[in-house]
Amino acid sequence: MDLLQPKGVRDFSPEEKIARDSVLAILKKHFERYGFNPLETPILERYEVLASKYAGGAEILKETFKLIDQGERELCLRYDLTVPLARYVAMNPNVKLPFKRYAIGTVYRDGPIKLGRYREFYQCDCDIVGANSAAADAQCIQLGLAVFSELGMEYNAYINSVALLKTILQLDGAPEEKLIDIMLILDKLKKIGEEGIVQELETIMVPGGCVRRIIAIAQLNTNNEKLAAIADAYGAIPELDRVRQILQLVPDNHVIFDPSLSRGLAYYTGVVFETYLNNSQITCSVSSGGRYDHMIGNFLEKPDDYPAVGISFGLEPITDALRLLKKEHQKTVVQVFVLPIKTPRESNSLAQELRQAGINTDIDLLDRGITKNLDYANMLGIPFVVFVGKKELEQEMYKLKNMTTGEELMLKKNDLIRQLTKA
Amino acid sequence: MDLLQPKGVRDFSPEEKIARDSVLAILKKHFERYGFNPLETPILERYEVLASKYAGGAEILKETFKLIDQGERELCLRYDLTVPLARYVAMNPNVKLPFKRYAIGTVYRDGPIKLGRYREFYQCDCDIVGANSAAADAQCIQLGLAVFSELGMEYNAYINSVALLKTILQLDGAPEEKLIDIMLILDKLKKIGEEGIVQELETIMVPGGCVRRIIAIAQLNTNNEKLAAIADAYGAIPELDRVRQILQLVPDNHVIFDPSLSRGLAYYTGVVFETYLNNSQITCSVSSGGRYDHMIGNFLEKPDDYPAVGISFGLEPITDALRLLKKEHQKTVVQVFVLPIKTPRESNSLAQELRQAGINTDIDLLDRGITKNLDYANMLGIPFVVFVGKKELEQEMYKLKNMTTGEELMLKKNDLIRQLTKA
Repeated sequence: MDLLQPKGVRDFSPEEKIARDSVLAILKKHFERYGFNPLETPILERYEVLASKYAGGAEILKETFKLIDQGERELCLRYDLTVPLARYVAMNPNVKLPFKRYAIGTVYRDGPIKLGRYREFYQCDCDIVGANSAAADAQCIQLGLAVFSELGMEYNAYINSVALLKTILQLDGAPEEKLIDIMLILDKLKKIGEEGIVQELETIMVPGGCVRRIIAIAQLNTNNEKLAAIADAYGAIPELDRVRQILQLVPDNHVIFDPSLSRGLAYYTGVVFETYLNNSQITCSVSSGGRYDHMIGNFLEKPDDYPAVGISFGLEPITDALRLLKKEHQKTVVQVFVLPIKTPRESNSLAQELRQAGINTDIDLLDRGITKNLDYANMLGIPFVVFVGKKELEQEMYKLKNMTTGEELMLKKNDLIRQLTKA
Repeated sequence: MDLLQPKGVRDFSPEEKIARDSVLAILKKHFERYGFNPLETPILERYEVLASKYAGGAEILKETFKLIDQGERELCLRYDLTVPLARYVAMNPNVKLPFKRYAIGTVYRDGPIKLGRYREFYQCDCDIVGANSAAADAQCIQLGLAVFSELGMEYNAYINSVALLKTILQLDGAPEEKLIDIMLILDKLKKIGEEGIVQELETIMVPGGCVRRIIAIAQLNTNNEKLAAIADAYGAIPELDRVRQILQLVPDNHVIFDPSLSRGLAYYTGVVFETYLNNSQITCSVSSGGRYDHMIGNFLEKPDDYPAVGISFGLEPITDALRLLKKEHQKTVVQVFVLPIKTPRESNSLAQELRQAGINTDIDLLDRGITKNLDYANMLGIPFVVFVGKKELEQEMYKLKNMTTGEELMLKKNDLIRQLTKA
């Protein structure tokens, strides 16, 4: 037997898990600050639900892990958190709208394994169901900015409306039935440039000219210039007002209106947005989202009754970006290691008192000598060691060693606790 | 298409999820206080690993969800967190011993669905790998007591050693090859009483007399009386010293030595323990654990090199017990709802300021009137509403309504923030 994990899934060591948990805690805090409530749905779903024509579609279904329960029912592992949200709203007609929920959990895709693609990964999603206002769009965008500000990261958030883009492309001669294909190609603008886009459009028999004007406008300097240029070129478009309102509600220099942004996902119906870090080796988006006004309603056979907008954060790229920003990486949650010198019971009592004072405390469990214990604390990256010797106990003193600097202090118990609490 | 979850799995509404998350946060805090570090392993495991003869055994394997990936590899959903821990230790020979890790996550069992049995449920486990000392046993027990004390629950923790019990049963004439069966039956003592046990033993051809003496000793009043009675009756048994040491390290009136306790699981090799709540409708154990010295080592083909002890907490019974203790249940994470009266932009700015001050803030997203918004805040259980009217804004005042008492206050912004922060 080979003791290995399955392909495409990962273990997270304590050091990695500590880093991930700290990002998750920040996400959770801000999700709640913005008034989103937690919802948990199971990882197992009925195949029939995920295979619905209103769900993720044929591409994603190919990558869905299927299984059978003892009752011969077809089940599968969820591939996202949005279809389960739709199912939950459908099963709970008493849910008050707008329903603002967040969900943090693993999803599963049985796809090809390339660099950075996994078969089990986290999604961290906030969605607002039942509000079609610009205020709801703006709230999702604001939440994203708050998270990256707290993380101390420099970002640019790009926003657009796919409804606006579709109108513009049609006014510039794009055939309606090819709009989704055109937008999928336009999505590669940063990668392949304007001439690359035009060439690819020609392969699907679309005149490249239909994208040139909007790409030119997207290159203007300020959001206001872009808004004005679109109004000049195309006249009054309701979705342009929506974008203007959102920009007014989110006054931030790092929010950039990019009228060429399409995000290429068929289910988006209105505003779309994505955030990238500046000056970072992490070049993929760290959060993204948009408005999808019909997906949940389609599930409920009331296509217009459940407008929705959501934002999703990428745990992996955010954790990686933080890792690159920091020089020191926390290897352990333990703050102090109690090292007994022939004082097992007194040491255990001290450890208990330190824990009651809120200090994460470990202690020798193997009756090892000083050198081995110091070695262990050092290998684990525990920042402090406190020695509990018989002689020192008689004087009610403890020796505290800072494992980083090597500095040693003799302290009374209260001072020991104070020292460790402030550390 | 029926929009339903699979059988045996559950959605957790915001109200339920808030309650569960608060228990998980307390568990996590104490796990770290006791020096356990987080480890995350995937929900998917290779079937070969979970089917190993060293893993959970044939019974549990029957209840294991199996699936196949695109590469035709046999996978399954983990049925516990202990086998993945063994795999992790095996794959990471550089792990420093003792390795203290905690893991919180869902596990899966495709078993019959009865009341209180689910196919997806949480395990919250702390284990110490590589320490065979009484101090390690005691630390797991202490951790359990700390959790239930913080939760404000009255408990009794029962401890024993299955090594001790096996020795005693054999000294009283129990045949070695039937020890596991006898202990499985003895496990029902609280349910069926001494005479019930004796009757069941006779059906497997074991003389009922072999359990009578230990049951009598288990009914003595104090731990010291029981320790003395066993020493008197059976002479020196090394495991009795171990129990004595543990009891000395955990001086707590609610730790009860029960020499008849067996926990009936074949892989336990030494101390076992379980905690029950007093004066609660929750009658199942809320935490349990024990020493299993060979299971991880067997995986690594070094049966004696990885002694281990662990404690597992039951998220479901603890959450239910807390729910019964509390009169009020938090329905939402939101602390205040901002109600704009024709002041969308000013209200949005206020909401942002409240969030920056650390207050969980929601706001009208549908441009609704006062009555509808108050209704919404009330239905969601949001404790405060702040009205943002034009006239009040001119005076830089805000009206804060306490939704529980109905009390209304006119406040300057700083006082508003102070009021909400202390609430």
